[in-house]
Amino acid sequence: MKINNVCILGAGTLGTRIALQAALSGFQVAVYDINAEAFMASKKVMAKILRSLSLTDEIIEKIKFTTDPAEAVGDADIISESVTEELPLKRQVWAQFSALAPAKTIFTTNTSYLLPSMLVDSVDRPALFCAFHFHDVFYSKVVDIMPHPGTSEEVVTLLEDFGRALKQVPVIVRKENPGYVFNYMLMAVIGAAGKLRTKEIASIEDIDKSWMVNFHMPMGPFGILDSIGLDTAWHVTHNLEDAGSQAFAALLKTYIDAGKLGEKTGEGFYTYPAPAYKDPDFLI
Amino acid sequence: MKINNVCILGAGTLGTRIALQAALSGFQVAVYDINAEAFMASKKVMAKILRSLSLTDEIIEKIKFTTDPAEAVGDADIISESVTEELPLKRQVWAQFSALAPAKTIFTTNTSYLLPSMLVDSVDRPALFCAFHFHDVFYSKVVDIMPHPGTSEEVVTLLEDFGRALKQVPVIVRKENPGYVFNYMLMAVIGAAGKLRTKEIASIEDIDKSWMVNFHMPMGPFGILDSIGLDTAWHVTHNLEDAGSQAFAALLKTYIDAGKLGEKTGEGFYTYPAPAYKDPDFLI
Repeated sequence: MKINNVCILGAGTLGTRIALQAALSGFQVAVYDINAEAFMASKKVMAKILRSLSLTDEIIEKIKFTTDPAEAVGDADIISESVTEELPLKRQVWAQFSALAPAKTIFTTNTSYLLPSMLVDSVDRPALFCAFHFHDVFYSKVVDIMPHPGTSEEVVTLLEDFGRALKQVPVIVRKENPGYVFNYMLMAVIGAAGKLRTKEIASIEDIDKSWMVNFHMPMGPFGILDSIGLDTAWHVTHNLEDAGSQAFAALLKTYIDAGKLGEKTGEGFYTYPAPAYKDPDFLI
Repeated sequence: MKINNVCILGAGTLGTRIALQAALSGFQVAVYDINAEAFMASKKVMAKILRSLSLTDEIIEKIKFTTDPAEAVGDADIISESVTEELPLKRQVWAQFSALAPAKTIFTTNTSYLLPSMLVDSVDRPALFCAFHFHDVFYSKVVDIMPHPGTSEEVVTLLEDFGRALKQVPVIVRKENPGYVFNYMLMAVIGAAGKLRTKEIASIEDIDKSWMVNFHMPMGPFGILDSIGLDTAWHVTHNLEDAGSQAFAALLKTYIDAGKLGEKTGEGFYTYPAPAYKDPDFLI
């Protein structure tokens, strides 16, 4: 089977970026969203990304944006779903598109925290269903391929090739695992950083300095938390039962309750748009 | 108090690098080792580092190398101890130098895994004793300052300034913690990577790819393990009691038993000098 037609469900941050990369990679792309206003924002983001890549806007004209589910799915070879991260909503969307899509269409979910087996009984083709998870498409070019136990091996292979066609490095997650591969390791770092802070072993700044200087990276765990969003990190952390994670979740909660969710609210562990860790004098 | 005279105990990898950086930073430096042959190797390493920094060899002539403990310590303002990582040996060395050093001399240990409180009763000046831990001095320029409960606050401040004088970023570890700050977080990443592998969730290569691409880093956790040495990682991991760490320690042991300790033996998770992760085709 060859993939030509790609249908993206959800015109949010990731749906927009996947759609644009697919179009740039030569695929026919349709973007579906329940809300037509989302398309304006999506096109603006696409234009901005294209400018950053020194490319013209023309490619956007080749992408079909529609609120009509049947028109969106058309003769799609693959659907990539990036709707809001809520289990009942995703299940409803998959039931809807199971009824609309041709039998050949491969179904993929870009979920970050759910597992494909939580969604599989709402799709009519379990063997063609798989998690296919992007990071940010243009900077962190990894796509995680996480089958559920009933996904066919051919679909995994096909998604590897499709991931490469989208200029991503495919990473296969052989067994369902929360957070895939990178996010699982990242959460381990963040959990360790959280324990160093809640046990008052080191300051936020010293923890970040230590990571930045040793790994020659532009930010440390607390800077990364600010960019992820403290609310997102809290959702993951407060579900972990060990005492260390609970203490860290409690710390995150004090920031969240004060409206400090990170970069998106202008303040988290650092203040934005000029956080201390970007100051050349931070690393002394 | 002003630091002028620096005494380095142990002419191994770290002792050599600390001595060279101290000399380059304008301090008077004496290097002590029980074995005079170590000095030849130490000077060769210094010459190599100086070439890589486009500097001449002259500075090496200014460093005193001696197997005489009293001559080494002389009028030292500070001792930096980097002898073999064995508790009885370090205790013996500290007892010996407690008897030799002037009352003013600050005592620091570069231990990686021991805590200063494990050594403190072999020194005659607990308030002047502190862990002062370097990473590799020239590439990862962090120095961890980890006091034991009896270290004076003035010594901590003085070590911060001395660390900066050695062109390191000081990181203060307020309470004793195994692995300081960076190594504690690094071991969390490595532990998570180990679990992904032992649970057969992902391959070694995919785990490393995921880290490398997301963080734009030249190697992933298994590449890092090869550079640390699998034996060193095993020493840390097999002391952790959770089932995941035990499974990972068992995996490391199969490599160690096969003589695969990492880069230093030519093979670990990858083979050297041309490991797969350095191949441009690795990230596809």
